[in-house]
Amino acid sequence: MADFRVPAKQAYDFCKTAFVKMGFSEVDSEKIAKVLNLADVYGIESHGIQRMWRYYTQTKNGSIHIDAKPEIVFETPVSAVIDGHDGMGQLISYNAIELAMEKAKKSGMAIVTIRESNHYGIAGYYTKLAADNGLIALSMTNTEAMMVHTNSKKPVLGTNPIAMAVPADPHPFWFDAATTVVTRGKLELYAKKEKEMPNGWAVDENGQPCTDSKRVLDNIIAKRGGGILPTGGSEEETGSHKGYGFGMMCEIFTAILSGGSTSNHHIRVEGKGAGSCHAFIVINPAAFGDPAEIKAHMSTLMQELRDTAKADGKDVIYVHGDKEAEAEKLSATQGINMKEKTLDELKKIADDLGFECKFDIIG
Amino acid sequence: MADFRVPAKQAYDFCKTAFVKMGFSEVDSEKIAKVLNLADVYGIESHGIQRMWRYYTQTKNGSIHIDAKPEIVFETPVSAVIDGHDGMGQLISYNAIELAMEKAKKSGMAIVTIRESNHYGIAGYYTKLAADNGLIALSMTNTEAMMVHTNSKKPVLGTNPIAMAVPADPHPFWFDAATTVVTRGKLELYAKKEKEMPNGWAVDENGQPCTDSKRVLDNIIAKRGGGILPTGGSEEETGSHKGYGFGMMCEIFTAILSGGSTSNHHIRVEGKGAGSCHAFIVINPAAFGDPAEIKAHMSTLMQELRDTAKADGKDVIYVHGDKEAEAEKLSATQGINMKEKTLDELKKIADDLGFECKFDIIG
Repeated sequence: MADFRVPAKQAYDFCKTAFVKMGFSEVDSEKIAKVLNLADVYGIESHGIQRMWRYYTQTKNGSIHIDAKPEIVFETPVSAVIDGHDGMGQLISYNAIELAMEKAKKSGMAIVTIRESNHYGIAGYYTKLAADNGLIALSMTNTEAMMVHTNSKKPVLGTNPIAMAVPADPHPFWFDAATTVVTRGKLELYAKKEKEMPNGWAVDENGQPCTDSKRVLDNIIAKRGGGILPTGGSEEETGSHKGYGFGMMCEIFTAILSGGSTSNHHIRVEGKGAGSCHAFIVINPAAFGDPAEIKAHMSTLMQELRDTAKADGKDVIYVHGDKEAEAEKLSATQGINMKEKTLDELKKIADDLGFECKFDIIG
Repeated sequence: MADFRVPAKQAYDFCKTAFVKMGFSEVDSEKIAKVLNLADVYGIESHGIQRMWRYYTQTKNGSIHIDAKPEIVFETPVSAVIDGHDGMGQLISYNAIELAMEKAKKSGMAIVTIRESNHYGIAGYYTKLAADNGLIALSMTNTEAMMVHTNSKKPVLGTNPIAMAVPADPHPFWFDAATTVVTRGKLELYAKKEKEMPNGWAVDENGQPCTDSKRVLDNIIAKRGGGILPTGGSEEETGSHKGYGFGMMCEIFTAILSGGSTSNHHIRVEGKGAGSCHAFIVINPAAFGDPAEIKAHMSTLMQELRDTAKADGKDVIYVHGDKEAEAEKLSATQGINMKEKTLDELKKIADDLGFECKFDIIG
């Protein structure tokens, strides 16, 4: 039994209870659990409950400061810069997007940036929250250096995801993508399966094409050079400088506009956070006309994209958010995916923290 | 003599004079000429003076309305929506970025969107103007449908460039890229040289890989299907959905937030403009702290990227804007590139409009 499915609600309850037991308040634990749960519900298992072990370890070793009091260090009616003081990334970010939404409702738009934070989960949780409130939003985070930019052999930028959501019917446009070709999680998956990676994903310590995921991951950890390529690959001919440019866009909004650490300065020090920087851009469609008309216009475009003639051999055209809406529907009856290894970790966490770990296995 | 170089100032003067003779005011002609000239100075010949023939033809056939009075149809302290009324794209956009800059200086940030416009030249002219004024900016435009999105065989989105500039030393970060792997101009270049395109740039009318640029261009014009692939290629494995997502981001800011035509509804009608939509996002760094510190932080990141160890076989690492700064320096002594065909067209324009076409050939 490698993979099985469990009710999404039970996964949420587990996370909430665990965070309360770790020392977070009830309200704060709910916020963090919501971010993790949406990843699972959307089928993005890498960012869901399977990360509990990592978060649990990091609260114990002091990378994540449970009692951190994030602080607004600079503020205007349309902006804020928050120092996260090594707190829990999801919690800092949940409160930051709420602040950005509040400002955007009043002023038309707002940008809130964050420094000295930790991993914040899926970038798209925060944009979904905004879209559910009728707002357009972008969310970005920098990460540990992993992107080998065009012509280099050492990473400086992170995988630097950019997410965007826009209200639409029957569900929002929801885009969430690393600016590298693939994420670190994808490499880990290939390493676990001992499968050769496709060419064009990564390079070795000499900046040469490399399909051995274990070697690339080891190199990233040991900071020996090599890493993941930008979307567009290694050469300008295939658009390498474009993925690199979008990675820069993320780095600018997150690290540069928060006065925080750029990805290449994320250095693991005991008792200190990851130094992650995030940014949230929220736009009130009412600043551009009638929100209902804008939503209808967006819905039309999305439907036209879906209705386009399909390439020979392709059955369906997705617009960003369609796959996640499908996964969400599935999760209502079929639960969310879980690996045996994850369940083992969750049992250990529950054991340590003194509560019962109980999941109904579906199907 | 296929290619030669002429003084940048003479190219600027030619354009300005031509636009005045076409019926634009002196001030307006200067604005348009500046946008074209920067493209040539930055080495982006496709968007420089070589487009004069197209603009001249379009003012004559009524696609570009010389006496259009762009109108602000919606406005808040941080936003504006402009109806361009089929005017000259560069002129509408020059005034729009100035409006966005003025608003951002007062309010911290601003977004100005435009509908019913025409081709606006290089997206990055407007961001450079902002960066030269100490502001961070993004510029986007939609275009005629040309991007074949993931799994489809007909284009819906355009090449949809996104540009961003950020003040830095010794010169600004300056990113300007189509969200397709390559631009239409690149295909035209390959067609002209009867050269086979690399695989991964385009697909034919059945959505299958195609390296015949002439066939792809003919298909785009005849709207038979096929076109240029998103950055990331045709498959999700190489990040196709990412280029497609960034193309959507552009479409959202330009067409959706202006209430204008999405790329798939840009239909050529005699006497009407292209229906192009643009967007300008301007951010005042003072909304996030000390602009001098933010600029220094940005300059450090750019230098660290340049100073990274180079991949075996690569001599130089560029940050976005470096190549353009080099080209600008070169143009000061060596002028800008021009093709004989362009010179022939310019002579014909000058002849028609009744002024002298005179260029000193350099070197």
